[in-house]
Amino acid sequence: MIVEPIGIIHGPFRTKDDCPIQPAFASNAPGRIEVFPQFAQGLQDIEGFSHIYLIYWLDRAGEVKLVRPTFLDDREHGVFASRHPCRPNPLGLSIVRLAGRRENILDVEGIDVLDQTPLLDIKPYVPKFDRIDQAAEGWTAGLDWRPKPKGRE
Amino acid sequence: MIVEPIGIIHGPFRTKDDCPIQPAFASNAPGRIEVFPQFAQGLQDIEGFSHIYLIYWLDRAGEVKLVRPTFLDDREHGVFASRHPCRPNPLGLSIVRLAGRRENILDVEGIDVLDQTPLLDIKPYVPKFDRIDQAAEGWTAGLDWRPKPKGRE
Repeated sequence: MIVEPIGIIHGPFRTKDDCPIQPAFASNAPGRIEVFPQFAQGLQDIEGFSHIYLIYWLDRAGEVKLVRPTFLDDREHGVFASRHPCRPNPLGLSIVRLAGRRENILDVEGIDVLDQTPLLDIKPYVPKFDRIDQAAEGWTAGLDWRPKPKGRE
Repeated sequence: MIVEPIGIIHGPFRTKDDCPIQPAFASNAPGRIEVFPQFAQGLQDIEGFSHIYLIYWLDRAGEVKLVRPTFLDDREHGVFASRHPCRPNPLGLSIVRLAGRRENILDVEGIDVLDQTPLLDIKPYVPKFDRIDQAAEGWTAGLDWRPKPKGRE
């Protein structure tokens, strides 16, 4: 099963230490999604959505461990119970705000992805599918953003 | 960029015509996520979440067209502005309710995926990252589930 980039994610974060752990913690960090021109037609009508999912290739993720501490706390959690970037398939998922479109370029806000990350797919955030009002927080309950532990992959 | 299944999605839908278009429209359709035993450790602590994302390989998707009518209406929309399964990278994304775990098996509800679909990743639905209260509905505003147009891929 082979995936190929449909574009490139451009943003302000050049290193893992700079990078926030999720868009919700990235406030207004601006980014630019470059969709390769041959796919630009697939963006038709995207302007009507305020939020989009980006699915991308975590090309600089480190060693895969099935259980590890996360950026949110120091306890170990399974990789499928966390959003940690080091995963068996290095697929990243983020929701960003869509600020505007210029042909094949999307201006977005709330980017949490390393600059030059290969983009695999864009999907609209559709409230009737995606907004879950009564979702449990699991082990993330009560935890909030903190500076990333130094040196932690 | 190569992805490999971490498991298999089992559910009640054997054909595309049976299959609902999103979990939100699948009500309580039960499913079973089989995570291959060598990845089971990665599920640690997932039980605390009520909802999870499944990322999967749309192995029976049809021809990719960048612009096409969808299952929700008869107007054409760009593939990146829709959740249509025929995409340049056939990556599917669904949010399902997690009903329980038995070692490497997850019992879920609200499945909208064809039986035997290859699973690529599981991520927890974390309300503070994923619940967007003021998201625009774009072209999906006012549209609701309808029977799939016959013969439409």
